[in-house]
Amino acid sequence: MVISPQFIIGVDLGGTKILTALADMDGRLVAEVKVSTEAREGRQHVLGRITGSVEQVLEKAGVKPEQVQALALGAPGPLDTRQGIIHFAPNLGWHDLPVKQVLEQRLAIPVLLDNDANLAALGEHRYGAGRNEDNMVYITVSTGIGGGLILGGRLYHGSADVAGEIGHMTVCPDGPLCSCGNRGCLEALASGTAIAREARELAACGRGAGILAESGGDPAGITAVTVAAAAAAGDAGAKSIIARAARYLGIGIANIINILNPSLVVLGGGVMDMGELIWQNLRPEVQARTLEAAGKSARLAPAELGSRAGVMGAVALALQAGGVKN
Amino acid sequence: MVISPQFIIGVDLGGTKILTALADMDGRLVAEVKVSTEAREGRQHVLGRITGSVEQVLEKAGVKPEQVQALALGAPGPLDTRQGIIHFAPNLGWHDLPVKQVLEQRLAIPVLLDNDANLAALGEHRYGAGRNEDNMVYITVSTGIGGGLILGGRLYHGSADVAGEIGHMTVCPDGPLCSCGNRGCLEALASGTAIAREARELAACGRGAGILAESGGDPAGITAVTVAAAAAAGDAGAKSIIARAARYLGIGIANIINILNPSLVVLGGGVMDMGELIWQNLRPEVQARTLEAAGKSARLAPAELGSRAGVMGAVALALQAGGVKN
Repeated sequence: MVISPQFIIGVDLGGTKILTALADMDGRLVAEVKVSTEAREGRQHVLGRITGSVEQVLEKAGVKPEQVQALALGAPGPLDTRQGIIHFAPNLGWHDLPVKQVLEQRLAIPVLLDNDANLAALGEHRYGAGRNEDNMVYITVSTGIGGGLILGGRLYHGSADVAGEIGHMTVCPDGPLCSCGNRGCLEALASGTAIAREARELAACGRGAGILAESGGDPAGITAVTVAAAAAAGDAGAKSIIARAARYLGIGIANIINILNPSLVVLGGGVMDMGELIWQNLRPEVQARTLEAAGKSARLAPAELGSRAGVMGAVALALQAGGVKN
Repeated sequence: MVISPQFIIGVDLGGTKILTALADMDGRLVAEVKVSTEAREGRQHVLGRITGSVEQVLEKAGVKPEQVQALALGAPGPLDTRQGIIHFAPNLGWHDLPVKQVLEQRLAIPVLLDNDANLAALGEHRYGAGRNEDNMVYITVSTGIGGGLILGGRLYHGSADVAGEIGHMTVCPDGPLCSCGNRGCLEALASGTAIAREARELAACGRGAGILAESGGDPAGITAVTVAAAAAAGDAGAKSIIARAARYLGIGIANIINILNPSLVVLGGGVMDMGELIWQNLRPEVQARTLEAAGKSARLAPAELGSRAGVMGAVALALQAGGVKN
């Protein structure tokens, strides 16, 4: 008896957790599993966590592997979507891992690979804030700043699968050092990491009492979350740090709008959860720095799928793959 | 007797000149005509200059209007490619001109309209430095800085036909005022206009003797061309101004490479004619500020078609239109 494939699987591989979703051929979720990545246990262990979570999600739904048409994996780092190789994933400690080949051997399901930010963009485009938009830019503002581009209705990868590195746009040539080695990247000025760094510098100058109070009294305990808490409690220093980050974010978004003339920019990631303090400083900067026609045609919107954008994008990619069979 | 169309026409409408080319269906040039725009005589006059140049080029080649399949016009400003309306062309003094309709009525040839920088990009992609590149960014550095994007092998227009405004990317948030009203745009830091402004400021401080010597002794006579001449004659101030502009250009190019991951960036326009003084300052900045994978996959190359990029792009567009007939 031949069982025709009726399901697809999406996996979002992050530095701390792995989200796995089973969906039917209309993209409706059937079951979900979330496990910790346990990256420090090494690559074999993490690969085992992925295959284990796939087995779990199948078992949960009572679905057989033969009924799964394709699995799409979203992973960090520069990677090769065609060959299915992760070139470099610093937070996993991986170099040149042929993850497609490994998972196909272990699971006997065709595997597709794409960048996590790209898949989050695809998720928001298909199921979230960007439905039916032809040209949409997705930006995630979190520990770092990443992005994905939907151009002409399709995910745009660039020539070496590394398009969308919005966080490494220079917006202040002599600005603070970025993790990439460059100075004045958007990520070094507007990410959660940048917000925490600014707050620690403030505390080091003997100021920032409100931030320290939210951070257990220890400058080392300062994070973007504690800065946000201090701002919410009315601390002027914290508010000013977040406002400045938001203005830089506005500059980066305006640049993207002038270059790509999208109809929509979707903003997600933990820093955006700070809400109005970000938006009220970001919007005027975007408006001031966009050319009239491009500015008028670009809407800004918060992401709708939260931490599930990536796995929903993986579902969308696996569905797109359509007839893919080994 | 039915005469089947065997030719197409490309027109590049600039603020000072109109270039018109007749080509066969393989894109081979048959005849060319160049006339001055005479923009100050008003829009009816300029429209007459366009139709006159079309008649001239046809006469020159002994071709009848019925033998022309399509005419593509490259024009400045925000415009609507589908409706064929030029929304705003400051250097022609035009507002909301339905140029497609007007020219089709007068010439009885189907007319296509696109942005001049887009068509220069298309020209370089089809006939110049960017042949066979899937993802190519064209940047023209002249009085202003403009650009055109070839993504996935096709001209990318964005959602309101205004994509590619690379010159209005902010690269220095509190930098000099730009003609667009914003501060620190790439155009305000690296265009020919910016180079001349910096040199005039130097002269106003009583320095820049070498630049003044090349400019007839009058600060008002300083242009990017006289600054380039002073630099070529060894003037340190002139060299430093051009080097600084080139470094900002490198920052803008690095941003584009990180965002779009093109395989090629083509640089044209009068400022690029300054040659090695630009390139030697631009290259290290691009290298320092691009992420490894994106930087490695992006070649930089000078434009090949010079002032004929736009008209060749118009030829390419008219040929693409293929079966377009009224």
